[in-house]
Amino acid sequence: MNNRTEKRNPSVRIIPLGGMEQIGMNMTAFEYADSMIIVDVGMSFPTDDMLGIDLVIPDFTYVENNIDKLKGVFITHGHEDHIGALPYFLKNFGQTTVYATRLTQGIIDGKLEEHGLSETAKRQTVRFGDVIKAGDFSVEFIKTNHSIADAAALAIKSPAGTIIHTGDFKIDYTPVFGDMADLQRFAQLGKEGVLAMLCDSTNATREGFTPSERTVGETFETIFAENKNRRIIVATFASNVDRVQQIINTSCRYDRKVVVEGRSMVNIIGKASELGYISIPEGTLIDVDQLKDYPPEKTTLITTGSQGESMAALSRMAASLHRKVTIMPGDLVVFSSNPIPGNEKSVSKVINELEQKGASVINYHTHVSGHACQEEIKLLYSLVRPQFAIPVHGEFHHRQAQAKVVESLGIPKENIFMLNSGDVLELSKEKAEVVSQVTHGGVLVDGLGVGDVGNIVLRDRQTLAQDGILIVVLTLEKYTNQLLAGPDIVSRGFVYIRESENLMDEAQQVVSDAVFECLDSRVTDWSRIKNVIRDDLGSFLWKKMKRSPMILPIIMEVE
Amino acid sequence: MNNRTEKRNPSVRIIPLGGMEQIGMNMTAFEYADSMIIVDVGMSFPTDDMLGIDLVIPDFTYVENNIDKLKGVFITHGHEDHIGALPYFLKNFGQTTVYATRLTQGIIDGKLEEHGLSETAKRQTVRFGDVIKAGDFSVEFIKTNHSIADAAALAIKSPAGTIIHTGDFKIDYTPVFGDMADLQRFAQLGKEGVLAMLCDSTNATREGFTPSERTVGETFETIFAENKNRRIIVATFASNVDRVQQIINTSCRYDRKVVVEGRSMVNIIGKASELGYISIPEGTLIDVDQLKDYPPEKTTLITTGSQGESMAALSRMAASLHRKVTIMPGDLVVFSSNPIPGNEKSVSKVINELEQKGASVINYHTHVSGHACQEEIKLLYSLVRPQFAIPVHGEFHHRQAQAKVVESLGIPKENIFMLNSGDVLELSKEKAEVVSQVTHGGVLVDGLGVGDVGNIVLRDRQTLAQDGILIVVLTLEKYTNQLLAGPDIVSRGFVYIRESENLMDEAQQVVSDAVFECLDSRVTDWSRIKNVIRDDLGSFLWKKMKRSPMILPIIMEVE
Repeated sequence: MNNRTEKRNPSVRIIPLGGMEQIGMNMTAFEYADSMIIVDVGMSFPTDDMLGIDLVIPDFTYVENNIDKLKGVFITHGHEDHIGALPYFLKNFGQTTVYATRLTQGIIDGKLEEHGLSETAKRQTVRFGDVIKAGDFSVEFIKTNHSIADAAALAIKSPAGTIIHTGDFKIDYTPVFGDMADLQRFAQLGKEGVLAMLCDSTNATREGFTPSERTVGETFETIFAENKNRRIIVATFASNVDRVQQIINTSCRYDRKVVVEGRSMVNIIGKASELGYISIPEGTLIDVDQLKDYPPEKTTLITTGSQGESMAALSRMAASLHRKVTIMPGDLVVFSSNPIPGNEKSVSKVINELEQKGASVINYHTHVSGHACQEEIKLLYSLVRPQFAIPVHGEFHHRQAQAKVVESLGIPKENIFMLNSGDVLELSKEKAEVVSQVTHGGVLVDGLGVGDVGNIVLRDRQTLAQDGILIVVLTLEKYTNQLLAGPDIVSRGFVYIRESENLMDEAQQVVSDAVFECLDSRVTDWSRIKNVIRDDLGSFLWKKMKRSPMILPIIMEVE
Repeated sequence: MNNRTEKRNPSVRIIPLGGMEQIGMNMTAFEYADSMIIVDVGMSFPTDDMLGIDLVIPDFTYVENNIDKLKGVFITHGHEDHIGALPYFLKNFGQTTVYATRLTQGIIDGKLEEHGLSETAKRQTVRFGDVIKAGDFSVEFIKTNHSIADAAALAIKSPAGTIIHTGDFKIDYTPVFGDMADLQRFAQLGKEGVLAMLCDSTNATREGFTPSERTVGETFETIFAENKNRRIIVATFASNVDRVQQIINTSCRYDRKVVVEGRSMVNIIGKASELGYISIPEGTLIDVDQLKDYPPEKTTLITTGSQGESMAALSRMAASLHRKVTIMPGDLVVFSSNPIPGNEKSVSKVINELEQKGASVINYHTHVSGHACQEEIKLLYSLVRPQFAIPVHGEFHHRQAQAKVVESLGIPKENIFMLNSGDVLELSKEKAEVVSQVTHGGVLVDGLGVGDVGNIVLRDRQTLAQDGILIVVLTLEKYTNQLLAGPDIVSRGFVYIRESENLMDEAQQVVSDAVFECLDSRVTDWSRIKNVIRDDLGSFLWKKMKRSPMILPIIMEVE
C-alpha cells in the first residue's frame, strides 16, 4: 500500500474475512494506512455435507500476508461464533494482544487453557468506555445487551472517520445484570459524525422489539408456582448467565436446591460466579450426587442440551444414558431456548423420549432472543446516523431485510453495502466502494488437523457414506505379470455379505473376468488394469443394485 | 388363533405395523377371527444416521405369516406416508385387492407403473359411502378434508364393533373442491355406537381450528393484486391439487399464463386434470419453452421445491442449474408451504440464493395445514364418542397431546391407548388390552436392494463418513509366512496425502514395525496380525490426529 496516496485521500478499509456467506466464523479486518485491527475471530459449525468435520475457521492467509500491520484483536462478546477460532489464530499470530471485556476474557481464558495457550497469549481486559490505541486506530468499547453478559459494540476511530461495529446486540431497558445498552454514547458518537455502521441483522426480518430478558423470569415465576409438586429441569444455553441467574432466583423463592449439569454449563457458571456476573445464595447449589437427599419437588436442575445435542446432559437423561440423573414420571422439563435452525428434529427426539418416560415438557414462552428486531435496528441507526450502512451477522436473507429497514430510514440505497467475505470496502467521507477481493474462506478442522481435509477428501467421504467401498486386491509377479493371488473382493458399508452371497459370487466373477482379460491381452499398465476393474465392477453393481460404491483396486507386486 | 375362543368373546385386534415410533410408514392391521385387513402401506424418509438409504418401508413379516387371512388393503389417501410402500407390498402379496378413492387410485397407478406393477396389481376404486365386504369386516369410506383431495376416513365394522380410522384429516367447512368432511355420517355412526377411533394427532399440540384452504386463496388474491408488474413463482406441494387450483384461478383473474414445473407436479396435476379434480381454463397452461413469448408480469410458475429439496425445480432455479428458467431481479417467489421439520436449513439456503439473484421472497400466511387442530379433534370425538381412543399419526409428543385432549372430553384415561408399533391391541366392548407383540420395524431400501443394508453396514458407513478408511495390504508366502510385498497403505476420505506426507511416512513405519514384530515372533494367525496392525495404526492416528478412520488390513497369500 502506498502511504502517500493514503494521506491525500484518507480512507479506511473494511474487509470481512468470514461471516458473510458462512454464518458464524465472524471475523473482520479494519485497515488504515499501515495499521490493521481484527474484530472477532469466530468459528462455524460444519454443514451437513462436511462429513467428519468438527468445526470451520476462517482462512488466515490475508492476516498472515499483512501481519506487520496487525495492531490488535478486539472481541465483542464470548460466543463461539465470535471467539471460537481464537486458539487457531493465536497459534499463528501469538504476538498479538486480544482486547475484550471481563467475562469475555474469562471465557476466552478457558478456551485457551484447553489449547495450552493460556500462558503465552497476550490479553488485556477492557472496561466499557475504555479507549484502546492500536496504530492509527483507537477503539472504544460500548455497553450493549445480548444473550451473554458483557457484550460490547466497538467505536473504531481512524483519521478517515468513525466506524461502529455493533457486534451481536439487543436493547434491554431492564436487563437482569448490569446496565442497559449505552444509548447515550451511541447518540453522542452519532452527533459527532459516524462514517459507517456494521449492524447485527440476525432478527432483521422480525417486526417490533425483542422482549427483555426479564420477561422470561416472569414466565419462570408462573411455571414454578404452578408446579410446586414436581422436580423441575430447565435446559438452556450454557452461556446465558442471566437466564441461569433467573432460574436460580426463582428456585430460591420456591425453596429449591439447584444442580448445574453439563460440562460447558458448569464451566461458564463457575467462571461467571468467580467474576461476579452471577450471584448464587449460599447453600443453594448442591452437587448432583446430593439430589437423593432432597425431595424431588425441592430441586431444580439447570442443564445443557436445549438444542438436542446428542452428547449433552439432557439428551443423555432422556435416552437413559446419564449416569447420575434418571427422568421420573412427573418431572417437568422446560426448554428455555428456541431450536437453532437445523436442530428441530434433534430437539423433537429428546422431547419425545422425555414424554415417553412420563415427564411433561414446556417449550414455549420460555425464551427471548438476544438479537435486535426491526424497531431496535431503527432506533440504533437513528441515534448513530451513519453515512454508510453495512448489515452484518445473519444469512443474506436477514442482511437484505436490514438493508430494507435502513433504506426506509432515508439512508440512500447506494450507501448500503451488502458485502461478501473477502470484499475490500474502501471508505472515505467522499465515497465508498468495493475495490478488490482478498483470500478468504472456511478452513476445515478435523480432530487435530487444520486444513488437511478438503474437497477431494470430503467427496470421498460422501461416496463412502452413500454406498460404502469395495476393495479389489490382487498380487502380480514382477516382469511376468503373472497372477499370484486374488483378485479378492473385500467390502465395507456395502451390503450384508451373508445375505448377498450370490451377488458377491457374481461380482467376484466379473472382477476375475476383467483381470484375466487384461492379462491375456498382455496389458501391463497397472492403471489400465485398475480402470477396467473399476468400470466392469461398477457397471455390474449399478445394473444389479442401482448403487455406486467406491471401487478401489489395489495391485501388489512380488518378485 | 382359536376360532372357538373368538366366538365366545368376540374381539377385534388392532396391530400398528409401522407409523408409531417411526413417523411415516403408516400401516395398520385389523384382525377378526380369520380375517385381516390392512389400512395404508406408507413409507418413511431415512433419518440422518441412515446413510445412503433411499427410503424405509414397514417389515411385512407379520403379513406374510398371516397371508391366508388377508382380505384387502384399504388406503385413506394418496400421500407417500400412506401409499409409498405399496409397490414393495404388492411385489410380495400381489393377489390382494387395493381399495381407494378415485384420485388416490390415480396416484397409486402412477407409482405402480414406475415399478412395472400396473398390469398385475388388483385395484378397486371406491366412492364415499361405499361399503366393501372383506371377510368378517365391512369397510365404509367416509369423506374427510386434507391437503390432498379425496381423503377418506374408514369405518371398519366387525362383529366385535365398529372402529373408525380417521386417516390424516382436517375439517374444512369451505373446501376448494368437493364436499366438506361428512360430519353427519360420523355422528350417525357415533349414535349407533363406536368401539374405538384411531385419530390423526399431527396438530394435536395446536389450539383452535386449522383455517380453510380457501383462506390461502384470499392471500394469493392480495399478493397478485400487489405484484402486477413482476413474474410470480409459487412453490408448493405437488399433491396439493386444491392449492394449485387456487393459484391457477388467481392467475386467470390477473390474466397470467401458467407454467407447471417439476416432475412430480406435472405428474399429479396431469392425473388430477384427467380425473376432473382440477379445472384449468383452456389457453391458461403454457409450456415452459413458451415463457419467452410473454412478458414476465403476465406469467405464473407453479413449481416443486417448497422444501428446499436439492433436486427440485425451484432449488435448481435458485442455484442457476435449471435449464429453462432463470431467476430475474424483480421476480417474486412465494413459498406456499411450511418447512417440514428437518428442512429449515435447506429452505433458507434456497431463499438466500433467490434473494442474491434479486428476487423477493414471501413465505408467510401462504399456507394452511392439512391436519386437525385441538378443536377439530374435540369435535370429531364428540360426534363419534368412541369407547376407546387410539391417537395415531404424529410423534409421541403429538399423540400424547391428543391423549390429553381426549381425556379432557371425559374419556377415561384407561380407555386411551398409546400404542407402539407391533403392539397387538385386543378390543371388545368389555375390555381392551395389549396382549402381545409381533414382528415389526423399518426395512431399509437402498437402490434396488430391500433389507440388504442393516445396522452393521450402516455403522461402517458412519465410520467411513467420519474419518475415511486406511487399507493396509501385504502379501505373505504360504507355509513360510515370509513377507513378499507390502505392507502398503492406501487411504480414501482420510487426509490430503500430498499435504500429509510426513504423517503417512510415519504411519507406514508404524505398520511395518507391527508386521515385522509379528513375523519375527512367528505369529502365523492372520487375524492376530490384522489385530496388531489395527491396534498400532489406530492408536498412532488417534494420538497424532484425534481421528479414528476405519483400518482394514488385507493379507494375500502366494504359494
